[in-house]
Amino acid sequence: MANNQKILLKNRPDAIPVPSDFELVETTVPTAQQGEILCKTEFLSLDPYTRGQINGRHISGAIHPGDMMRGETVSEIVQSYHADFKVGDIVKHFGGWQSYSMSDGTGMQKIDTRISPRSLALGILGMPGLTAYAGLVHLAQPKAGDTVLVSAASGAVGSMVGQIAKIMGCRVIGIAGQSRKMDWLTDVAGFDGCFNYKNEDPALAIKRLCPDGVDVYFDNVGGDILDASMNQLALGARVILCGLMAQYNTDSPPPGPNPGTIIRARATVKGLVVYDHFDKQTAFLDKATNWINSGQIKFVEDVTEGLAHAPEAFCRLMAGGNFGKTIVKI
Amino acid sequence: MANNQKILLKNRPDAIPVPSDFELVETTVPTAQQGEILCKTEFLSLDPYTRGQINGRHISGAIHPGDMMRGETVSEIVQSYHADFKVGDIVKHFGGWQSYSMSDGTGMQKIDTRISPRSLALGILGMPGLTAYAGLVHLAQPKAGDTVLVSAASGAVGSMVGQIAKIMGCRVIGIAGQSRKMDWLTDVAGFDGCFNYKNEDPALAIKRLCPDGVDVYFDNVGGDILDASMNQLALGARVILCGLMAQYNTDSPPPGPNPGTIIRARATVKGLVVYDHFDKQTAFLDKATNWINSGQIKFVEDVTEGLAHAPEAFCRLMAGGNFGKTIVKI
Repeated sequence: MANNQKILLKNRPDAIPVPSDFELVETTVPTAQQGEILCKTEFLSLDPYTRGQINGRHISGAIHPGDMMRGETVSEIVQSYHADFKVGDIVKHFGGWQSYSMSDGTGMQKIDTRISPRSLALGILGMPGLTAYAGLVHLAQPKAGDTVLVSAASGAVGSMVGQIAKIMGCRVIGIAGQSRKMDWLTDVAGFDGCFNYKNEDPALAIKRLCPDGVDVYFDNVGGDILDASMNQLALGARVILCGLMAQYNTDSPPPGPNPGTIIRARATVKGLVVYDHFDKQTAFLDKATNWINSGQIKFVEDVTEGLAHAPEAFCRLMAGGNFGKTIVKI
Repeated sequence: MANNQKILLKNRPDAIPVPSDFELVETTVPTAQQGEILCKTEFLSLDPYTRGQINGRHISGAIHPGDMMRGETVSEIVQSYHADFKVGDIVKHFGGWQSYSMSDGTGMQKIDTRISPRSLALGILGMPGLTAYAGLVHLAQPKAGDTVLVSAASGAVGSMVGQIAKIMGCRVIGIAGQSRKMDWLTDVAGFDGCFNYKNEDPALAIKRLCPDGVDVYFDNVGGDILDASMNQLALGARVILCGLMAQYNTDSPPPGPNPGTIIRARATVKGLVVYDHFDKQTAFLDKATNWINSGQIKFVEDVTEGLAHAPEAFCRLMAGGNFGKTIVKI
């Protein structure tokens, strides 16, 4: 058996991280004891919220320098002394940035056989997909004809929000930061419009694309784009706060939109954390696997080969240079 | 018949207004024509949102220099050529800052005879009371045992929010800025605690008084107090945004709390405008007149005698120097 490769946080970046903020180490692959499961990582998910863990500002806890980077993985079980799992099972758990992970089974799930490719279990059929589904369908409750605006629109969460909203009969506008993302949103994913926030002032673009106001804004970024969206809300708008990409790379949390924007629109703003919505997992998977297998929902993955390249891929993600759900194939 | 006295906005203040921003003029009292009603003002309501109208930032429209100041009044009808109203009726309408007002009956209501004293129709039994009731009972939906925090707590809205929350079995903490207000909140209105934001850092005081978090925050002020409250929300908190006293005296709207505070608490933040809740008026009055007539709800009014002194009273209100619902007796 090869060595176990792990990636540690070397030092805490104060802006967009760079690969030298991380360090690859090699250790011996451990042997499972009674009650334990040894997993070989197949796919590792890279997610913006991890930057919040590095800052110590994420609700799921902090990653300190010297700690292994955390992340969700799809793995194959190679040793098992646990009654619920056997060698050869394909499972999902928080295995971290390493080629082998040991587990006592906590939080481990076998991957639903309808999920194909299996990497989707980390993306639009995993936590990001459930995040989109729970936030849009249960918290925002869009009606047919509503204008739904979503930021980070070609990412795993954003692309599901927009495409589910289309299935629900909404008019959907996306925000992203690359021209290839624009093309994908309108030509492949069926969005009604989109704009590149790097090329157009968000306040003007949102007024242009949502002239009658935004009924639902699903926010994955915070910052100036949230501010601009809040100033174009329709009466009775729902705003789902899901991610804060614009501030993950900052040292201290910046202020948010003026509260008058919420009063003026009689808006409802809700904070979304996917951990509260695991009870909707089965209903979500039943629907979403159908949508994907029937071609109603499209997806794009940004796959990097080899754990050693995970830091570069993560840094690119945090600079907005990824396209689609960011995955490392180990 | 005496002349009609009116108070006009003379110039738009850029901070807390001063009496010289206003001007008293005398005009002839007009005579009602067919379809018209002439009213003699008995009480004039002074309200912080009027400062937003002066800024041109309130949803109910702008007051420009040279315009008469707007405000809700309790008046006696002295001439009527309108089928629905007769001489001697006591009515409530937006008569403005003047001793006589002419109306075609639009928005005019006869005062419910259960309302005593009649000035309460402008305060805790009027729009401010309905604001408190609709926002607390219908938007925030507190449960018995919840910790309810309210700012501008001795004002017409705040004092009703706190006292209705007590009736609903909540633990109630108030925020105000004068020691006599503190005494009234705990000794008369039955609040469980309060603090003076001029003497104690709001962030520390809210942690001290709401150690298990704030389940409902009813915000009448915005600014630093809103920010401090958002950082101490309990899981699942409801925040009702009702007033923005902290920014009415500013030229441009300042930023608000970091959106991470909403995500972390999975909070729901709702904007409240009383105009959306007039359908609850009857239910509110039935309950609230009982509460007041039985002594369950206490009130305090800040009454100034004479229209000529309305500007001073308004300026004092906007500097936080009032105590209770601010009324001018004409």
